[in-house]
Amino acid sequence: MKYLADLEFNEDGLLPAIVQDVDNDQVLMMAYMNEEALNKTITTGYTWFWSRSRQKLWKKGETSGHHQQVEEISTDCDGDTLLIKAKQTGGACHNGYYSCFYRSLNDEAEFEVIDEKVFKPEQVYENQ
Amino acid sequence: MKYLADLEFNEDGLLPAIVQDVDNDQVLMMAYMNEEALNKTITTGYTWFWSRSRQKLWKKGETSGHHQQVEEISTDCDGDTLLIKAKQTGGACHNGYYSCFYRSLNDEAEFEVIDEKVFKPEQVYENQ
Repeated sequence: MKYLADLEFNEDGLLPAIVQDVDNDQVLMMAYMNEEALNKTITTGYTWFWSRSRQKLWKKGETSGHHQQVEEISTDCDGDTLLIKAKQTGGACHNGYYSCFYRSLNDEAEFEVIDEKVFKPEQVYENQ
Repeated sequence: MKYLADLEFNEDGLLPAIVQDVDNDQVLMMAYMNEEALNKTITTGYTWFWSRSRQKLWKKGETSGHHQQVEEISTDCDGDTLLIKAKQTGGACHNGYYSCFYRSLNDEAEFEVIDEKVFKPEQVYENQ
C-alpha cells in the first residue's frame, strides 16, 4: 500500500486516530489503528480500530450499530497520527454521548459533564 | 489538583492532547502532555507539551511565536485523551501549514498535500 510510506507506526505498530464529525466538526473520539485496521477502514469505508485492552480488531458500531462512514483520511506532518472525518450514526461514545469528549474543566479545576446523552447505553448494549 | 482524579496517564506518564481551533473547528495537531505540561497549560492559559524526542517541556510557539491560547480543556470517557480548544496564532505546523493535518489520502491511496502554507518556516525559524 503506497500510503504506508508516509506513516510512522509506533513501537506497538499503532497510530492514534482522531475521529472528527464531517457534518458538525465535533471531535468524537480517539482510538488506535494498526496496519490491518487502517487497511480495513480504507477498503470498507467504515472505521476499524485495534483494541489494546482486548488485543483484537473491532469495527466501530459492530455492537451498537453506531458506525462511522469515512469521508476523508489525513495524516499529520510527522505521519504518526491520523485524522478521520466521518459521518457518525447514533453516538460515538459507549456512555451514550455523541462525542467521547463530554467532560470539560470548570472554574473549580474539575471535569464536569457538559453534554446530554443521545442514547441509552443500557438499551443499545442490552444483549451484551 | 482535583482534575487528576479523572485522568489516566499512560505508562510513560503522558496523555495525547488533540488541539482544535476554537474559531474554525479545524483539528490542528496532536502532541503529548505530562502532568507538569497540563498544569502549566491550565495555569498559564497557553499550551505546553512534553517532547518525547527531546525529553523536555516546551511551550507551543516558544520559537515561532505561534502560540495557542486555551479556551477549553476536555477529556474523553476513559480519561486517557485530552481535547484542547484554542486560539491559534500564525500556524500550528512547523512546516508552515495552519494545521499539521495538511495531507489527505487521494483516490490513488497516496497522501497528497491539500492545504496552502500560511507562513514560511525558513523565515520563522531562521535564528534556530
